[in-house]
Amino acid sequence: MLLEAAVVHDLPADAVLFGQGDRPEFLHVLIDGRVGLTARGMDEKEVVVEFMEPGEAFILAAVLTDAPYLMAARTLPPSRVLLIPAKALREHVSTNAKLAAGMLASLSRHYRMLVRQIKDLKLHSATERLGCYLLVLAAQAATKPDGTVTVTLPVEKALLATRLGTTPENLSRAFANLRPSGVRTLGGTVTISDLQKLTEACAMAPPIPD
Amino acid sequence: MLLEAAVVHDLPADAVLFGQGDRPEFLHVLIDGRVGLTARGMDEKEVVVEFMEPGEAFILAAVLTDAPYLMAARTLPPSRVLLIPAKALREHVSTNAKLAAGMLASLSRHYRMLVRQIKDLKLHSATERLGCYLLVLAAQAATKPDGTVTVTLPVEKALLATRLGTTPENLSRAFANLRPSGVRTLGGTVTISDLQKLTEACAMAPPIPD
Repeated sequence: MLLEAAVVHDLPADAVLFGQGDRPEFLHVLIDGRVGLTARGMDEKEVVVEFMEPGEAFILAAVLTDAPYLMAARTLPPSRVLLIPAKALREHVSTNAKLAAGMLASLSRHYRMLVRQIKDLKLHSATERLGCYLLVLAAQAATKPDGTVTVTLPVEKALLATRLGTTPENLSRAFANLRPSGVRTLGGTVTISDLQKLTEACAMAPPIPD
Repeated sequence: MLLEAAVVHDLPADAVLFGQGDRPEFLHVLIDGRVGLTARGMDEKEVVVEFMEPGEAFILAAVLTDAPYLMAARTLPPSRVLLIPAKALREHVSTNAKLAAGMLASLSRHYRMLVRQIKDLKLHSATERLGCYLLVLAAQAATKPDGTVTVTLPVEKALLATRLGTTPENLSRAFANLRPSGVRTLGGTVTISDLQKLTEACAMAPPIPD
């Protein structure tokens, strides 16, 4: 069994799971917490490409092809991660069509996440991207009887700005732009008073499902 | 044999292969020509997410999971495309570990293409992105004895701007910014007089291989 060789690691906040350019030794599956997949340029500026939530395996493409990671991974809050040896996984996948099908489905889902992000970066303003991001958070939160939803930003604003493909200054401007649509912030807490108004402000087409 | 059910289509320039939101009926493999994978927002603005070159299969993620396409595909010059029925492909993949492994490798490569593009969009300026794009074109062209390389832009500048995640105005500015690094344009023809200087202008780290 593949999972017999797997181990569970408990990690503190801000722990590096692997670096950009490292060769994959394990497939990481997030059990609990949150992980940022990050990238660095020549000037050592770090940007978040994507956040991983519990249940996600990352980064399958590098693990399956034994290619160096294009991104680094680090925990944001303290997190629990399952480590599956990469070599054993590749051997199982090459002989087990059912496992391969599962990996194809997972990789396809992650491919589509990246397509959605590129579409957002190319088609939408930073304000629209922030509005959509808040709507996704709001969909996972409870709505009060008066229609208000309060969400907590999962990471500090500087990091969130890089995930949304903008600068901290432009993110502040984007929050200000959303004020007429009923969005108020206090530190990392965001209150949305009118989901319908915010949806209109995002200028989003209905999402194409997975 | 899976390929027995496949057919070859010859298409004129600007022919739509499938639309955003369509359900995949075939896996498309480009034999000859060039295809743009494009996306549209609410305002019907069209952007190029990626260009496909001969030998590329697109878009595997949607075909394998039978999910609606997130992007449209259309030919740029006249192109020849192989169509493999999606349903037959999915059936073969689910029972044939070797075929599944090939699909995983292809999907992994495309996943990494998107990661590279997101990194470029988040870490680099439009000028740096244009410089890198020209270096990729230059790597496929012949260098003259005086070190000069002449390349032809594969698409009109307005479309190229969307691929690079910028506007036509900013693309003109980016070309102007690269002039001191020895880049001259005349319509769709670009002359690069000093590859070393252009490489430095791109502020790129050495690429992580596949």
